Amino acid sequence: MDRITLDYTNALAATIGPENGVQEASLADMQGLLSEAQAKVESRRTQDLRWLDLPYQADVHQEILRYAERMQGRFENVVVLGIGGSALGNRALHSALNSPFHELSPPAGAPRLFILDNVDPDLVGEFLDTIDPTTCLFNVISKSGSTAETMSQFLIFRRALIERLGDEGHKEHVVVTTDAQAGVLRPIVEDEGYCSFVVPEGVGGRFSVMSPVGLLSSALVGIDILGLLRGAAEMDKRCREANWDANPAKVYAAIQWQMQEQKHKNIAVTFAYGHRLRDLADWYAQLLGESIGKVKAGPDGNEHVGPTPVRAVGVTDQHSQVQLYVEGPTDKWFTMLEIGAHDHRVPIPADYGDKDALAYLGDRTLSELMAAEREGTRIALTEAARPNVSIHFPHVTAHTVGQYMYLMEYSVALMGELYGIDAFDQPGVEAGKIAAYALMGRKGFEERAAEIQQQQQRPSKGV
Amino acid sequence: MDRITLDYTNALAATIGPENGVQEASLADMQGLLSEAQAKVESRRTQDLRWLDLPYQADVHQEILRYAERMQGRFENVVVLGIGGSALGNRALHSALNSPFHELSPPAGAPRLFILDNVDPDLVGEFLDTIDPTTCLFNVISKSGSTAETMSQFLIFRRALIERLGDEGHKEHVVVTTDAQAGVLRPIVEDEGYCSFVVPEGVGGRFSVMSPVGLLSSALVGIDILGLLRGAAEMDKRCREANWDANPAKVYAAIQWQMQEQKHKNIAVTFAYGHRLRDLADWYAQLLGESIGKVKAGPDGNEHVGPTPVRAVGVTDQHSQVQLYVEGPTDKWFTMLEIGAHDHRVPIPADYGDKDALAYLGDRTLSELMAAEREGTRIALTEAARPNVSIHFPHVTAHTVGQYMYLMEYSVALMGELYGIDAFDQPGVEAGKIAAYALMGRKGFEERAAEIQQQQQRPSKGV
Repeated sequence: MDRITLDYTNALAATIGPENGVQEASLADMQGLLSEAQAKVESRRTQDLRWLDLPYQADVHQEILRYAERMQGRFENVVVLGIGGSALGNRALHSALNSPFHELSPPAGAPRLFILDNVDPDLVGEFLDTIDPTTCLFNVISKSGSTAETMSQFLIFRRALIERLGDEGHKEHVVVTTDAQAGVLRPIVEDEGYCSFVVPEGVGGRFSVMSPVGLLSSALVGIDILGLLRGAAEMDKRCREANWDANPAKVYAAIQWQMQEQKHKNIAVTFAYGHRLRDLADWYAQLLGESIGKVKAGPDGNEHVGPTPVRAVGVTDQHSQVQLYVEGPTDKWFTMLEIGAHDHRVPIPADYGDKDALAYLGDRTLSELMAAEREGTRIALTEAARPNVSIHFPHVTAHTVGQYMYLMEYSVALMGELYGIDAFDQPGVEAGKIAAYALMGRKGFEERAAEIQQQQQRPSKGV
Repeated sequence: MDRITLDYTNALAATIGPENGVQEASLADMQGLLSEAQAKVESRRTQDLRWLDLPYQADVHQEILRYAERMQGRFENVVVLGIGGSALGNRALHSALNSPFHELSPPAGAPRLFILDNVDPDLVGEFLDTIDPTTCLFNVISKSGSTAETMSQFLIFRRALIERLGDEGHKEHVVVTTDAQAGVLRPIVEDEGYCSFVVPEGVGGRFSVMSPVGLLSSALVGIDILGLLRGAAEMDKRCREANWDANPAKVYAAIQWQMQEQKHKNIAVTFAYGHRLRDLADWYAQLLGESIGKVKAGPDGNEHVGPTPVRAVGVTDQHSQVQLYVEGPTDKWFTMLEIGAHDHRVPIPADYGDKDALAYLGDRTLSELMAAEREGTRIALTEAARPNVSIHFPHVTAHTVGQYMYLMEYSVALMGELYGIDAFDQPGVEAGKIAAYALMGRKGFEERAAEIQQQQQRPSKGV
């Protein structure tokens, strides 16, 4: 019954005026386009967009749960070695569904979770100095096995384990999530005899949170992955609705597209009103940015498209970004994530009641304060004609978070069709990778290395 | 000798072409404007911009160090109750200068640091469930003493302390940073006999990191605040240079201004290549967003100005945002923060040398990998004509971080003059605050409450 809902009243011209708001009729006019987009997406469900069916892989889910049960109590720490889509979903689930102080004081029997999504030596080195690797289970996540960051970390922690536990002993500290057959990691798994899980075909990194990529670490730290998947499945059903205004993915994709293409709002702010929702906004930033940020051929040459995702956290960023949001350029639109009921009830004591600036706080709760500030911000944005929609989470549970994540994935797939781009590739990261390979002296990149060396000798301007 | 430097080669038309790059001559043409801006800022140094002189308040610094010494070993935890400018600088310093695992494993004698910059009951409630308040020193930070979030937290934790320690016993667990005379907290300090520090006149929240606001928690967790202030003082000297091209604040302000006003790049990305620098980018997001995001009267009515700050972290966000940055719209410019030498040296073992995808990593270090990826990204951005400048930190130390923070503050002050707005107010947050007061039933806001109630009865659109 905990259904998330999307309220778009404050994105409509009827509420905030025609300059910044979209006409309801123009959304209705997109019914045909949206249905076409949906048909294209659905036609690929059993082909290259198999992530759409991830909520229904019951045997995989059971395998993950059995593994998690077997591991229970065996490791103090779970360490995800992954980056991008192999880290952002894991982190979003952990911070939404476990305590913000989980690592400091994990519940009885549950491991801590560390997600090392950077190769900064001051992160990895400090981790090595702080945490004994023999207390850790390392989940190495890379579909191809050639992700430089993840594989470097794997080499480093594998060596650290072998030094302490020997070649045989280290093996039970590693579990690999990778392609079923292809890539560099699968043969390593087979040679070493590591436990492993599969990143299925048709599941790109940023759409992989409902696969073993996101589910394994979640199950290990006690997250209700079946609830998550049930939420996703329920949302899948809603996303297959034919009528645009009964389908939250269609509504969200249509508004996002109109905001950028017609209202010239190139910035999409996810304003997460809740400390626990902050990393969901980061997860979505990859999903939106990498999927829609593309170049395509247009009538007058190349067109560069894609909204820029920005994350804000309420109430915190009222004291950081709201000034800009309310008075700055009208180049943004806002998705507020709001929570109906919190898990904790924290009353504010009625002390210093003689002081006006404090009296109104007394005998209220932090939930009430948070809701009042959220409404205050919503009212201020709306009165300043800043378009905003709200996604309401009745509670923050695996079930509602699963709905939200699936909704965002589906709406991004629809947006890809509206924009006329491939939402599932990322060609723009190749140039940087190749240059980095050249600089690292990787075989086959010698020519590029020579070019770069020459460029770097050009004079520079600095102060 | 650890001087931070700013390289702007890749923001110039000579490097990336005239469509996206600025002409060096046009920067030189701003010499007069920049000198005027500087003169205006300097004329206010001893008036309402006293934050400029924070590096020189030796007696305050000594008082903070003496307090920190007196507190040493007395508390397991320091808890900052503050939000916005009373939290972002504290967090940025802690994450730049202490271990990412400091809270898990604090150095001998050092307390943990928690910065509770939200009123989310699932954050504050979980904190109360996890951490015994009698092990904490609470630093309440609010200049006015009327910040709803901070004062609610103060009421909650004060009550929790009194319940455990009694009215007298609780007092040594509280230290207040507030106005010298005005506001709600100063009389409370005097009535209760709390220890206290002063937020000086002429120091707004987002320019307060070098005042007791940012220094006190830093000194308590062992940060070298004198090194920080020395860095700031050295940068102050560089920011007072007359010639634009010898003055990093002038160069940075001029490029930022031209990027937005002439090159139509409304998004300013701080791409922090270093896990430790990530929260400096958040600190800057408030500084830039709240200072420059303003409405002003223009010839054709109101103009809404201000770049939108975006934070990215390298190498992590290569797997999240770089696709959008390289191929998406040319609506961004980039400031890369780069680190010369890391504190840790983490070699990558040369295992699996028979696999091409791993062989090139062997016997290199994570620093080398990080540098290669950073250069790879820089090259990709530059070749895609995406303007980028680099701020080089020889090491990440209090001394270099002090330089960076002061540089950003000074350049934002100059930008305020270039934009013709008041960089030191935040009128745009009032509307939301007033609505929140009304919703909380604060005395004097009854009329607004009635209005809002009426508005909320309007029909809404949702799915």
